[in-house]
Amino acid sequence: MGLVVQKYGGSSVADAEGIKRVAKRIVEAKKNGNQVVAVVSAMGDTTDELIDLAEQVSPMPAGRELDMLLTAGERISMALLAMAIKNLGHEAQSFTGSQAGVITDSVHNKARIIDVTPGRIKTSVDEGNIAIVAGFQGVSQDSKDITTLGRGGSDTTAVALAAALDADVCEIYTDVDGVFTADPRVVSKAKKIDWISFEDMLELAANGSKVLLHRCVEYARRYNIPIHVRSSFSGLQGTWVSSEPIEQGDKQVEQAIISGVAHDTSEAKITVVGVPDKPGEAATIFRTIADAEINIDMIVQNVSAASTGLTDISFTLPKSEGRKAIDALEKNRSGIGFESLRYDDQIGKIALVGAGMKTNPGVTADFFKALSDAGVNIELISTSEIRISVVTRKDDVNEAVRAVHTAFGLDSESDEAVVYGGTGR
Amino acid sequence: MGLVVQKYGGSSVADAEGIKRVAKRIVEAKKNGNQVVAVVSAMGDTTDELIDLAEQVSPMPAGRELDMLLTAGERISMALLAMAIKNLGHEAQSFTGSQAGVITDSVHNKARIIDVTPGRIKTSVDEGNIAIVAGFQGVSQDSKDITTLGRGGSDTTAVALAAALDADVCEIYTDVDGVFTADPRVVSKAKKIDWISFEDMLELAANGSKVLLHRCVEYARRYNIPIHVRSSFSGLQGTWVSSEPIEQGDKQVEQAIISGVAHDTSEAKITVVGVPDKPGEAATIFRTIADAEINIDMIVQNVSAASTGLTDISFTLPKSEGRKAIDALEKNRSGIGFESLRYDDQIGKIALVGAGMKTNPGVTADFFKALSDAGVNIELISTSEIRISVVTRKDDVNEAVRAVHTAFGLDSESDEAVVYGGTGR
Repeated sequence: MGLVVQKYGGSSVADAEGIKRVAKRIVEAKKNGNQVVAVVSAMGDTTDELIDLAEQVSPMPAGRELDMLLTAGERISMALLAMAIKNLGHEAQSFTGSQAGVITDSVHNKARIIDVTPGRIKTSVDEGNIAIVAGFQGVSQDSKDITTLGRGGSDTTAVALAAALDADVCEIYTDVDGVFTADPRVVSKAKKIDWISFEDMLELAANGSKVLLHRCVEYARRYNIPIHVRSSFSGLQGTWVSSEPIEQGDKQVEQAIISGVAHDTSEAKITVVGVPDKPGEAATIFRTIADAEINIDMIVQNVSAASTGLTDISFTLPKSEGRKAIDALEKNRSGIGFESLRYDDQIGKIALVGAGMKTNPGVTADFFKALSDAGVNIELISTSEIRISVVTRKDDVNEAVRAVHTAFGLDSESDEAVVYGGTGR
Repeated sequence: MGLVVQKYGGSSVADAEGIKRVAKRIVEAKKNGNQVVAVVSAMGDTTDELIDLAEQVSPMPAGRELDMLLTAGERISMALLAMAIKNLGHEAQSFTGSQAGVITDSVHNKARIIDVTPGRIKTSVDEGNIAIVAGFQGVSQDSKDITTLGRGGSDTTAVALAAALDADVCEIYTDVDGVFTADPRVVSKAKKIDWISFEDMLELAANGSKVLLHRCVEYARRYNIPIHVRSSFSGLQGTWVSSEPIEQGDKQVEQAIISGVAHDTSEAKITVVGVPDKPGEAATIFRTIADAEINIDMIVQNVSAASTGLTDISFTLPKSEGRKAIDALEKNRSGIGFESLRYDDQIGKIALVGAGMKTNPGVTADFFKALSDAGVNIELISTSEIRISVVTRKDDVNEAVRAVHTAFGLDSESDEAVVYGGTGR
């Protein structure tokens, strides 16, 4: 009983059959006595097809027009979903992001939600309708232009609407059964996590887990909206993400010491070689990077060689930003003062995440021992209160993840195969 | 020099190549010193594909949701068109019907425009942009829901915008060279008309000519907006539709006695047999038909047979309304009092249109002589000040049209083949 916001990704509504299956699931939630708001992405490959069309008419499609184009995708899926629900004998109305009151800034293709004014959605569900809302899109506060939220945007739409409507839960339906202790494509014995705290989920998302986007979890934590990640195919209980464990029938859910092992091979490492070891050097380097609007991840400064007074500074960043970072540093070479730049995209990152490590001092030692036993060499180390991450050779990543997963007792007893995929947008 | 509203149908923007070709044409108009607003339909078969999807999820898609779905079509074409224009180095912005201020009533799938408040379009063109507007769609005044205008709706959008913006001309680009003196698929010697009055064009549209919809011409006449129907492929001068002839260079354009011959085989004839020949009978019959929201065209009442005091009343109507009309009459059989109903869908209508017939009394006689010489039997006759139309057997229609076209000297000297098609929506 209450208000449920559900989100269905593109793979769940890839064709007419998928739409009908999702319609049934939505109606089920309504029949259980809930008010239901369903956020939906574009059907399957629609977005890619639209981008392909755009590239046929213009090599560099304008942001405003690209947003106008791409938002046609959800318009199609949401209208079809509303029809399918009405065909099951329930009332449904579809709403664009603009109609749903999703107000954003004006940064086309990756707008941020500023406010949600869901008056029409509230009225619609109060009148007994199921409201279907286009994910991924909004309207800019200043220019009233249509905007899109960028990758994973539909999840953010769902959580933001859930917050604005004071929903009881935000259910994210996807093509996997939930969040796992590791990527099941790498660790066949990975287990589904029943419950995970916002904090641990944020660390997993920041370190390569793709089921939920960092931004969406952050939003949910800020407004304390429990997220339930589950499969749109199986109907099983998935993973709850919330501030406190949620009772699941008889099942006692406890805070695990270690939540899981994330990994990421999408980053590269840049080493700035031969930097004068004096105050302000690091600041100059990272100001240069920040001015180029590049987000970096881990940073390490070597101990200076006494003989030369020079040191090396390494940092990691998304491979896609590599070219831009190198160019920015080269351009400011004289201002910074360094001997050379080294670019390395054959790295991988492994992160062990768990709030339990705060009170279990042995975790770090066990982590390094597991890596060492597996013969994995460590290049960089970074830690937070609830996470340890290391950079290794890319080729060692899978072996490292498996070794750590086993060492911390995360392996499942059963050996069922799980399919694991991204959630699209 | 001035403000030009252009409209491009779905066949003109069927693929990326078509969109780029249309973009060039639009830029040309801009380079000639005009402010340009371009109204665009959905690409080629998009609408049919979306309807097909809708039917896969629901046998009777709800009107509100069908409108939401179909309007995705123009969203795609208009965004692509704006991108293609920007790629040619000109500024362009696309707008939905709602953003363009196209306010309609709430009748989904065939809404009527109530008002146009084109503030954003005005601002956009005043800032030097080319404004691209989605045809066929609007937003309902009461519920703020997305609506569509029904068949030919994009033409109406263009004319309505032209009126609201006080444009100098509304150019309707299509896949034919203009309006012809007859359907070139039937009359190979049909000629392109250089200029035609609103009144004659209205009669042609009402009697089967498909190049411009009746509703669109009516709108243009009410606001006195000249329409220029022309090919998006050839770039030639097409047909001007306006209140007064428009000078075309050296060419002297005069009011023709006869504008053209239209024909229509989409109607059926219903005969109400054995009706008491007393006052009020016809009123009862046509009240019954009107209550069923059926539009009828021609009406004929036979001379009553003195012996029985009974008469027959025949009328024509779109075939698609035939079933509904028969049902309505049968339901009210006792109230009306008739012996039987006859339904005949093997009829055709031929109409001769021209303001000149007001002052040329021989036209009617020549018309009937031409039909008689061609051996065509006439079943019903209807006239207005500027039109004579007759109903014949469907099989006689093509022959009748050719005979009349020749008799009134409309045949072209040259024998070029012309491709003739509808304008879609």
